[in-house]
Amino acid sequence: MIDIQRIQTQAETIRDNKAFELFVVGVIILSALLVGAKTYSIPSPLVTLIHWLDIAVTLLFLFEIVVRFIADNNKRRFFFNGWNVFDTLVVVVSLIPIDNSEMALIGRLVRVFRVLRMVSIIPELRMLLNSLMRALPQLGYVVLLLFIIFYIYAAIGATFFSEINETLWGDISISMLTLFRVMTFEDWTDVMYETMAVYPLSWMFYLSFIFLTTFAFLNMVIGIVVNVLEDEHAKERAEQDREDGKATLDDLRDEITELKAMIQNLSNQQAK
Amino acid sequence: MIDIQRIQTQAETIRDNKAFELFVVGVIILSALLVGAKTYSIPSPLVTLIHWLDIAVTLLFLFEIVVRFIADNNKRRFFFNGWNVFDTLVVVVSLIPIDNSEMALIGRLVRVFRVLRMVSIIPELRMLLNSLMRALPQLGYVVLLLFIIFYIYAAIGATFFSEINETLWGDISISMLTLFRVMTFEDWTDVMYETMAVYPLSWMFYLSFIFLTTFAFLNMVIGIVVNVLEDEHAKERAEQDREDGKATLDDLRDEITELKAMIQNLSNQQAK
Amino acid sequence: MIDIQRIQTQAETIRDNKAFELFVVGVIILSALLVGAKTYSIPSPLVTLIHWLDIAVTLLFLFEIVVRFIADNNKRRFFFNGWNVFDTLVVVVSLIPIDNSEMALIGRLVRVFRVLRMVSIIPELRMLLNSLMRALPQLGYVVLLLFIIFYIYAAIGATFFSEINETLWGDISISMLTLFRVMTFEDWTDVMYETMAVYPLSWMFYLSFIFLTTFAFLNMVIGIVVNVLEDEHAKERAEQDREDGKATLDDLRDEITELKAMIQNLSNQQAK
Amino acid sequence: MIDIQRIQTQAETIRDNKAFELFVVGVIILSALLVGAKTYSIPSPLVTLIHWLDIAVTLLFLFEIVVRFIADNNKRRFFFNGWNVFDTLVVVVSLIPIDNSEMALIGRLVRVFRVLRMVSIIPELRMLLNSLMRALPQLGYVVLLLFIIFYIYAAIGATFFSEINETLWGDISISMLTLFRVMTFEDWTDVMYETMAVYPLSWMFYLSFIFLTTFAFLNMVIGIVVNVLEDEHAKERAEQDREDGKATLDDLRDEITELKAMIQNLSNQQAK
Repeated sequence: MIDIQRIQTQAETIRDNKAFELFVVGVIILSALLVGAKTYSIPSPLVTLIHWLDIAVTLLFLFEIVVRFIADNNKRRFFFNGWNVFDTLVVVVSLIPIDNSEMALIGRLVRVFRVLRMVSIIPELRMLLNSLMRALPQLGYVVLLLFIIFYIYAAIGATFFSEINETLWGDISISMLTLFRVMTFEDWTDVMYETMAVYPLSWMFYLSFIFLTTFAFLNMVIGIVVNVLEDEHAKERAEQDREDGKATLDDLRDEITELKAMIQNLSNQQAK
Repeated sequence: MIDIQRIQTQAETIRDNKAFELFVVGVIILSALLVGAKTYSIPSPLVTLIHWLDIAVTLLFLFEIVVRFIADNNKRRFFFNGWNVFDTLVVVVSLIPIDNSEMALIGRLVRVFRVLRMVSIIPELRMLLNSLMRALPQLGYVVLLLFIIFYIYAAIGATFFSEINETLWGDISISMLTLFRVMTFEDWTDVMYETMAVYPLSWMFYLSFIFLTTFAFLNMVIGIVVNVLEDEHAKERAEQDREDGKATLDDLRDEITELKAMIQNLSNQQAK
Repeated sequence: MIDIQRIQTQAETIRDNKAFELFVVGVIILSALLVGAKTYSIPSPLVTLIHWLDIAVTLLFLFEIVVRFIADNNKRRFFFNGWNVFDTLVVVVSLIPIDNSEMALIGRLVRVFRVLRMVSIIPELRMLLNSLMRALPQLGYVVLLLFIIFYIYAAIGATFFSEINETLWGDISISMLTLFRVMTFEDWTDVMYETMAVYPLSWMFYLSFIFLTTFAFLNMVIGIVVNVLEDEHAKERAEQDREDGKATLDDLRDEITELKAMIQNLSNQQAK
Repeated sequence: MIDIQRIQTQAETIRDNKAFELFVVGVIILSALLVGAKTYSIPSPLVTLIHWLDIAVTLLFLFEIVVRFIADNNKRRFFFNGWNVFDTLVVVVSLIPIDNSEMALIGRLVRVFRVLRMVSIIPELRMLLNSLMRALPQLGYVVLLLFIIFYIYAAIGATFFSEINETLWGDISISMLTLFRVMTFEDWTDVMYETMAVYPLSWMFYLSFIFLTTFAFLNMVIGIVVNVLEDEHAKERAEQDREDGKATLDDLRDEITELKAMIQNLSNQQAK
């Protein structure tokens, strides 16, 4: 029992060691470079070197996750943290020996995702990603509205234009992709001129769609800006409250109440 | 007479029932999925199924609008609400039996617009759309200015460039469409190089147009941002006023006035 | 002498008449529609009608500017106002009888610019345009910086790439146009791939240019936003100051000073 | 020793002379025009003139940097200033006699960079550029996050799509350039349709990439806006503090404290 305790303490020491942390960051960067290097056509000896380095990276990642797991005081909670689950999954899939080519692709993909570990190991990036994630649900209804706009226009497009261009307006999902293309202004006039040849008024379809989505998107952006500014204001106000020695209106009222009591007292004294 | 009263009460009970509301949302989603499904090439039995489901959806919508109408206390006002008119129209047009193919397209279009009922049934989306609508008139003059800019440039374009490219600059309305294309930067250089071959200085036409519209559009966006922020500030201030127990400057002034009265009183007492 | 005075008063009455103002707006809209109508291929009788209407519009404009000039109290200052000069110029050029085709184009152009009178007659649009104009000089240095960036990149482009594509990089002014195209992302990769075939590292030229201009443009936008928000704040504060009946901190200090005097008085009374 | 002192004082007089400054600005503008003129095909006599003007500009620049160096009190610190180093480098490279054509290109490049001296000589532009530079590090982590997103998507792209189009997805660096192109929406659908022919679900790759980068970019912009607005607020507050004669809550509290002392005094007096 004591032995396990000692191992945990040692693991904790390793985990909290600054040098170990930097070493892990180094290994992650190495693994990212390996992933990049593999996309070049490289001479055979280098391929072998990369292969061995890849195995070394996998083992180091395995070692690191084991250390982190042992060091954790509350082993049940370890897998409640999304980042820990992600790290473990990446290591486990990397360990599976891959033979056939289909699995090989997944193996390569997992190695690519190792780069994402950069986010989990650098606290600032993790905070940034978390704050991005937190901003999303607040925009939920605008996104829903955007989706409804897309769906309605895609349904109209697929109904009327599918005979004009099967590739662009074949069914509702392809139409939504085409509309996203129109929204990014990518060769949208080619799409429009094609349908205008059959339905001369179809420019109204595209222009109204562009206005609606641009307007909704703008509202999304403004929504984020307002949220961010409000958060900043809230922080600012909280900070002001912390500042000592500054009088508030409530302080003044209390002082005046005291004054009144003193004058009342004086008045009573005199009445005697 | 009493009978009608009872029916209204029952209709109200149904309308305000949470389960009924969820059921209607479900039916709307089903109708949206049906609209989407029809754009795919599907086997014959499925087509029949979709046909029957479509009729079922129409009848359920009819039932729902009737319930809502009966439940309403002020039947005259029912059709003053734009959403109620929209819902009724969608149901009525869906009920018309359609034979010839031209009407069939309108029938399909109406079925697509049923998806918009999603907006009318979810209060948050209705509020969002209302607030978008409310933002528009405030921007009226910027939109008018943008339109005048477009009109002048389109008139110049149609006057000088119509002989260069009839498809792009044929008349003033086509020219406005071409200018909108230029505003979205969609292959605008192709349009420009074509006219520059005849009028080498015509790049000034395009560049000045891009600057003017970008600048006006920017002002529109900033106008919305400022409006939104002001609304937020107004809300914030109103909220602060609602907060109880917090002293305001007016409260303090009242307190000081009371103090004065007390001292005056004391002074009078003493003078006696 | 008295006669002239009477004419001026009459002219003033006409000028300030609401019906006359609406009539002028109507004439301006008519002249705008005439300009638009001319860009369509129209049957011969209509052309004659438009011709006569055009003359009528010119005469009405002449009448209106004469009325405005006579009504003005300070005739010397009349032409200090840019809008008056613009209106007079448009009328004068419209009056010149045009024979040869080259002048005819200028005549048509002037008729197009009549639409701009819409801006001069509607006070809200005039204010909007003035405020846009006022925002420009504040951004002067950012625009200068953007121009220097463009100039340097255009000089580099014209020096190195002119042999690759004479049409895009022939001289420094053509290069600046090409760079503006790159800034709008219009087929910029085609331009880049062409030069990358000769200078493989030229992607750095394009990417650094895009980053610099985007960043500078962003700063321009933010500069406008901050200016606008500051103006709003200033207005808000000025408004708050105008609000009567609301206590300010200075009011409270004055009240407290009065209180002190009263107590001092009381103290003196007692001392006697 | 005294002689050197006198020379320094004279140099200082020249450097701080307004006319000298304007003259230098004029020379810089001349050098910029020369750079622009060289990109046109010009007749032979003009080429000779430009050649001699170019030498004159180089000598004037040399004279100016020497004056500035002599005038500086702390000669060691002179080269700590980045702008001074830049100015000196530009002059030194301009002075090197160039024979072979490869070096000639560098010589021409340096002449182009002379235009940047405009930034170093106009204080407002220098301040603007400095403030742009200062804004960058604050965005460091967002830029790092953007880079990681690019790297991961480029690795996936180079792994899966390199066989489809070697030119676009050949290796990880080319893939990153292609992804930047997708981010600017430049013909991104062509890139997508090509890979969708092999992997029909690859639209998810592009759409998720566009959403992630747009969202991250948006956050960057908002980050800058918030920073700028905060700076403005800080400035405003500092200004308010400087305003004299305006009562603060702390002033009022002090006044009330005095009041209390006076009443206490009165009370004591009476008790006697």
